[in-house]
Amino acid sequence: MIKKLLIANRGEIAVRIVRACAEMGVRSVAVFSEADRHALHVKRADESYFIGEDPLAGYLNPRKLVNLAVETGCDALHPGYGFLSENPELAEICAECGIKFVGPSASVIRRMGDKTEARRSMIAAGVPVTPGTEGNVADLDEALREAERLGYPVMLKATSGGGGRGIRRCNSAEELKHAYPRVISEATKAFGSADVFLEKCIVDPRHIEAQVLADSFGSTVHLFERDCSIQRRNQKLIEIAPSPQLTPEQRAYIGDLAVRAAKAVGYENAGTVEFLLADGEVYFMEMNTRVQVEHTITEEITGIDIVREQIRIASGLPLSVKQEDIQYRGFAIQFRINAEEPRNNFLPNFGKITRYYAPGGPGVRTDTAIYTGYTIPPFYDSMCLKLIVWALTWEEAIARGSRALDDMRVQGVKTTATYYQQILANPDFRSGNFNTSFVDNHPELLNYSIKRKPGQLALAIAAAIAAHAGL
Amino acid sequence: MIKKLLIANRGEIAVRIVRACAEMGVRSVAVFSEADRHALHVKRADESYFIGEDPLAGYLNPRKLVNLAVETGCDALHPGYGFLSENPELAEICAECGIKFVGPSASVIRRMGDKTEARRSMIAAGVPVTPGTEGNVADLDEALREAERLGYPVMLKATSGGGGRGIRRCNSAEELKHAYPRVISEATKAFGSADVFLEKCIVDPRHIEAQVLADSFGSTVHLFERDCSIQRRNQKLIEIAPSPQLTPEQRAYIGDLAVRAAKAVGYENAGTVEFLLADGEVYFMEMNTRVQVEHTITEEITGIDIVREQIRIASGLPLSVKQEDIQYRGFAIQFRINAEEPRNNFLPNFGKITRYYAPGGPGVRTDTAIYTGYTIPPFYDSMCLKLIVWALTWEEAIARGSRALDDMRVQGVKTTATYYQQILANPDFRSGNFNTSFVDNHPELLNYSIKRKPGQLALAIAAAIAAHAGL
Repeated sequence: MIKKLLIANRGEIAVRIVRACAEMGVRSVAVFSEADRHALHVKRADESYFIGEDPLAGYLNPRKLVNLAVETGCDALHPGYGFLSENPELAEICAECGIKFVGPSASVIRRMGDKTEARRSMIAAGVPVTPGTEGNVADLDEALREAERLGYPVMLKATSGGGGRGIRRCNSAEELKHAYPRVISEATKAFGSADVFLEKCIVDPRHIEAQVLADSFGSTVHLFERDCSIQRRNQKLIEIAPSPQLTPEQRAYIGDLAVRAAKAVGYENAGTVEFLLADGEVYFMEMNTRVQVEHTITEEITGIDIVREQIRIASGLPLSVKQEDIQYRGFAIQFRINAEEPRNNFLPNFGKITRYYAPGGPGVRTDTAIYTGYTIPPFYDSMCLKLIVWALTWEEAIARGSRALDDMRVQGVKTTATYYQQILANPDFRSGNFNTSFVDNHPELLNYSIKRKPGQLALAIAAAIAAHAGL
Repeated sequence: MIKKLLIANRGEIAVRIVRACAEMGVRSVAVFSEADRHALHVKRADESYFIGEDPLAGYLNPRKLVNLAVETGCDALHPGYGFLSENPELAEICAECGIKFVGPSASVIRRMGDKTEARRSMIAAGVPVTPGTEGNVADLDEALREAERLGYPVMLKATSGGGGRGIRRCNSAEELKHAYPRVISEATKAFGSADVFLEKCIVDPRHIEAQVLADSFGSTVHLFERDCSIQRRNQKLIEIAPSPQLTPEQRAYIGDLAVRAAKAVGYENAGTVEFLLADGEVYFMEMNTRVQVEHTITEEITGIDIVREQIRIASGLPLSVKQEDIQYRGFAIQFRINAEEPRNNFLPNFGKITRYYAPGGPGVRTDTAIYTGYTIPPFYDSMCLKLIVWALTWEEAIARGSRALDDMRVQGVKTTATYYQQILANPDFRSGNFNTSFVDNHPELLNYSIKRKPGQLALAIAAAIAAHAGL
């Protein structure tokens, strides 16, 4: 069993991992930049080490992080999400130095991180993929020819992209000509690779992803799916588990596909297989070879602690559950509370949290690194809190989400909380009728007054639901 | 459906009911004494009304509360727990005034509130009761004769008592002579009745109670049991659901007994049937005709929102679940975080909460009315927070409890939190081997230093559990 774990991350996911360590008797080691000196993950970990003045350099230096793990007597390293979590080099250096990497092998990360390679693996495994180019496109001419063959609109994608970056929709040859140099430039900067490829654009799809867990004994299971269709510019805002818009047959099919995908590449540890659904078809999109921001809602419906399983797997232990024992109950919704101004084009705003009050009561969970008096540094992600609610039915989960958003207090920065209330009040959302265009298709949801009396909107939503459900 | 509900209570249970209302589209009305002007239930309710300078008088005046409900346009009243929750007069006045009382009828409250009458009802229904007097005892002489017949030790109990008050163990005739006038005096003051009776004292029992729900259509279900054996002077400290020390057969038997007990008296709404278990025998103790402090852990394992069901039942709606659909999953533990000094004879201490940080992450729930800057008034209960944890297994629930206690910050008052860490670390507790004498039998658990580095105890416990479970 892992004894001491270095957490190569920050923010709420670092706190999440510290908590799993505390519950498993694993000693936790945090790292921090100057900007993170007073961060919660530093306060909560058993030990913590300074990794440099620069806000980012330390978190992005695999060699330095692994060396620190070795020097501080760690036997394992957890990469969290973002930063180096999908960087095969980090996994490789860990392996070299005898540090257990809490994630899949470098070769699997590399294979799934290369989107054209991943597509090839999926096609070979019989997992349906979006129609697209055979591999990367060599130049703009080839891109234009291929786009013609696929038919517009097409998606121009960076082969090493991920997290919604390095991706552009092109509705015409003109747009493709315009986007081509930009995506290449973006990809080179963000991922260090200029490779791009094309896929047919699936119009108005739903984003459905399946959580998988795989141990080193050949056991691979899925933990059902999440519906992450509520996004803005490919950034997820609200995630739901299970999807309120799948039939049981679709659910079983997607779970099976995810297990097949993971097995095809010899996957080990926790991972997520992302799919697009449109017109009754399911298409593999990509696999995220790490824990995801929205793993929480899967934990809520299945009761399985995903970070705990990750640490068990990396320790060489078998999964603590078999597929037939994995059941889901009710519905969970995660709200990414971002320090952004929705009515000002979602402009990020940082600063001091003058007051934080965590909502409580039944079916409410928070995962956050903020606290009253904490100053959110401007160098990182604008997500400051994950609010997760659970209830036995979809209608009750919506009502609970609304109540919890209302109950919560995050003062000192502007957040997306009230905007999410607007989404919860929308009839299409409530009836489970939404896809990835929902946010774009409902600009009217941005027309709200922040001066609404607390409680009133929650009440109105609950009343509407009660009327609808015939309570 | 109830449209507007007066909450005839304060503190965390009032907040709990406000939250249920918000989720159901029911308008909530809070009441407050002068001491509660800045209380959270007042801030969170849709409306709130002052009910007098005196800290207690308003909360204890049934006529005034029902009149207020009528005047403010409420169609229902929820009594919470404590205060007037088991006062049949309140239910009666509600009925007179056309206000739906969220609880059973006055006659059922009266019948179960009279402990000798309740015993008779249970005997008639075939529910096993502790050997005891046929009814009340007329005087000390009769008490001494009856005690001789039952055999010492005996329990001298106020017929109208409850919540651990008006009850005394007598190990000899001498002790009975001494206790007799005291219990009568206590009972007269606290419950307005001098009636007392005797029961054989069940030595070192476990306290197991079953949650029931019953609607007005004749459907009565149980939601499994809670183990409330960790008590001090008949006050529960830590509650667990389900009991880690029952066999499936015992679990089914107790659930059935509870349903039989509730049906025997025509029970309606939520209630709890309390049993003592010793030497393989089960004895009915009493029925609490209201929601209980520890209803939370039953919600965690079953997913059923008990306060929601209460409001549905009072609205004349059927239960939202059938017995065969009620499943439990994992284990939940509730810690009553009291503003008390365990090492100073659990002396209550009140004052300003200089800092409150709610623990977060998976499987953690808080129900509280405190917030940073709130001053706990000295007039009420010393319980300031309920920390509830859930996990798939008993071992993980203990580890999570320890982690969450460690994660939580309640500063400005001394609390029982560190004492609970001591209990979690105890091998008897961990192995599920405990009864109502646990706290008395383990005075050594009070020997702790408050200067322990945060995190260390949680880590030690988790390591011990991991070693034990062969992780």
